[in-house]
Amino acid sequence: MPHSRQIHLTRRPQGLPVHDDFALVDAVVPDAGDGEMLVQALIMSVDPYMRPRLDADQALGEPLLGGGIGRIVQSRHPDFTVGDLVRHGSGFREMFVSDGKGLTKLHPDPELPLTVYMHALGGTGLTAYGGLLETGALKEGEQVFVSTAAGAVGSVAAQIAKIKDCYVVGSTGSAEKAAWLRDEVGLDAVIDYKAAPLAEALAAATPNGIDVYFENVGGAHLDAALPRMNVRGRVPVCGTISSYNGTPQAVYGLFNLIYKRVRMEGFVATDFAPLSGAFMRDMTGWLKDGRIKYQETVLDGFERAPEGLIGLFEGRNIGKMLIRISD
Amino acid sequence: MPHSRQIHLTRRPQGLPVHDDFALVDAVVPDAGDGEMLVQALIMSVDPYMRPRLDADQALGEPLLGGGIGRIVQSRHPDFTVGDLVRHGSGFREMFVSDGKGLTKLHPDPELPLTVYMHALGGTGLTAYGGLLETGALKEGEQVFVSTAAGAVGSVAAQIAKIKDCYVVGSTGSAEKAAWLRDEVGLDAVIDYKAAPLAEALAAATPNGIDVYFENVGGAHLDAALPRMNVRGRVPVCGTISSYNGTPQAVYGLFNLIYKRVRMEGFVATDFAPLSGAFMRDMTGWLKDGRIKYQETVLDGFERAPEGLIGLFEGRNIGKMLIRISD
Repeated sequence: MPHSRQIHLTRRPQGLPVHDDFALVDAVVPDAGDGEMLVQALIMSVDPYMRPRLDADQALGEPLLGGGIGRIVQSRHPDFTVGDLVRHGSGFREMFVSDGKGLTKLHPDPELPLTVYMHALGGTGLTAYGGLLETGALKEGEQVFVSTAAGAVGSVAAQIAKIKDCYVVGSTGSAEKAAWLRDEVGLDAVIDYKAAPLAEALAAATPNGIDVYFENVGGAHLDAALPRMNVRGRVPVCGTISSYNGTPQAVYGLFNLIYKRVRMEGFVATDFAPLSGAFMRDMTGWLKDGRIKYQETVLDGFERAPEGLIGLFEGRNIGKMLIRISD
Repeated sequence: MPHSRQIHLTRRPQGLPVHDDFALVDAVVPDAGDGEMLVQALIMSVDPYMRPRLDADQALGEPLLGGGIGRIVQSRHPDFTVGDLVRHGSGFREMFVSDGKGLTKLHPDPELPLTVYMHALGGTGLTAYGGLLETGALKEGEQVFVSTAAGAVGSVAAQIAKIKDCYVVGSTGSAEKAAWLRDEVGLDAVIDYKAAPLAEALAAATPNGIDVYFENVGGAHLDAALPRMNVRGRVPVCGTISSYNGTPQAVYGLFNLIYKRVRMEGFVATDFAPLSGAFMRDMTGWLKDGRIKYQETVLDGFERAPEGLIGLFEGRNIGKMLIRISD
């Protein structure tokens, strides 16, 4: 029987996760039984949402929760054949037995690299698409602000807003990311929040206010956006990365919600399953037309998953953070 | 020509308003011209929403913005007759000339005291009704938390929720108010937040979580409510009284919005004009049936308006704060 490695969480991180919070563990993988199959992991996704789970539903001494793309290498399941590609949410394991639950077959477009199915055409992209268009109820030509606009979700959200003819301002935390957003992506205004006072910069960049703030950060970012919100503005809350590694940043300006009747609303990608057909159609077209640009940081080697997760919170990724396990 | 007194704002308050921020000013009132009438103020309302306006759209050296009930004492207007009662939003003036703009005729039910048209049957009641049923999308039998539940808006919101067969928890800031909510109003649980740690008390009082938090306070109240919110919970934001007199209280727990898909949304009473027919019908019935109870703090004397406003933020009112100017 093959051996497989797993990444386990060994203890709850205090603040920013460190390498010693994780362990690389060897496991024996049984052969696939009747109605089962053996899946080999190819690529896995590392995402900000994983951090709060380390404090909550992530079990200690079990594989780190997460999703990726794998290939069927053995099958005694009627619906799957050796060689099939699948999306899975089976956690950080090089190889595993599955009865098919939580697996969906993937038929990648031959003109697109497989990795985009882990971001723009994956949960990342659906999060941006549903959060902006459904929760955020974006209308053509509106004024939009996206935080962490160079990140995996933020960059897709910002570009969908541009495709919808909106005026789009993005914030990011480095000159390099700001240059990409300005020169490659073509946002209307870009704020490097580490280089300029955020609230003043945002006020200057939003002369017509903000109709939709796509919220990825929380804290000072939200306080900068709230006074700029227009009447009946929306704040789809995708994430609050400022709160994930220790004491959350304070927010003071929620009184701005009242007179401007602003709506803030949380969402998760699974809410948007009914949109997934329209999303795959739209996004595949936009990618092929070059209307959605992206960047990837791919770490080669299964054992580098903790490095990827830690790096994400240190801002060391450019675009989507991925772990490549096998070709 | 009659003389009339006005209350002016003389300077922007620093934190809690003080008497010297206001002045009692004499003014000559001209006779009503063609298409005009003379209105004598009878009762005026003092409300928390007035405080943020003192920092914003309230002009210095002009009558304090506000609304009340008056009586027509002279009329050259075709639609109004001497003796008519009207609701007005003409500010703190004992007597004033009006061309009818912003005035609506009031036909009070003879079985109800006129003062209830300043709260349960006025903007206060409509705020509670629309905020809870429309913005809050309250459903029968839900779990509800109302802050400042003994206040003018809060007490109506809490009782509407009871009428809708909800489980209702209220918070208030004194033993006397808590006793009224428990013994007279009949809430399911009451928290005196000055006597017990709020977050722990709220957790204990909401074993089935919170579907709707009717938000009047902000800061620590919101942070106590957020972890208790149920999936798809709503937070209609009526006010954030903790932020009105100085530095707003910090909020830390907005990450709770995400996984529970909680919606926070601001509103103001004027949004609910389309509901006003249903509101007047429902509320008149509930008041006559004794299903909506209320308390009033009535200060006699026009000159006491600043005392009323200051007292409101010191919690010195029981129920609705009113100024009686004339019978």
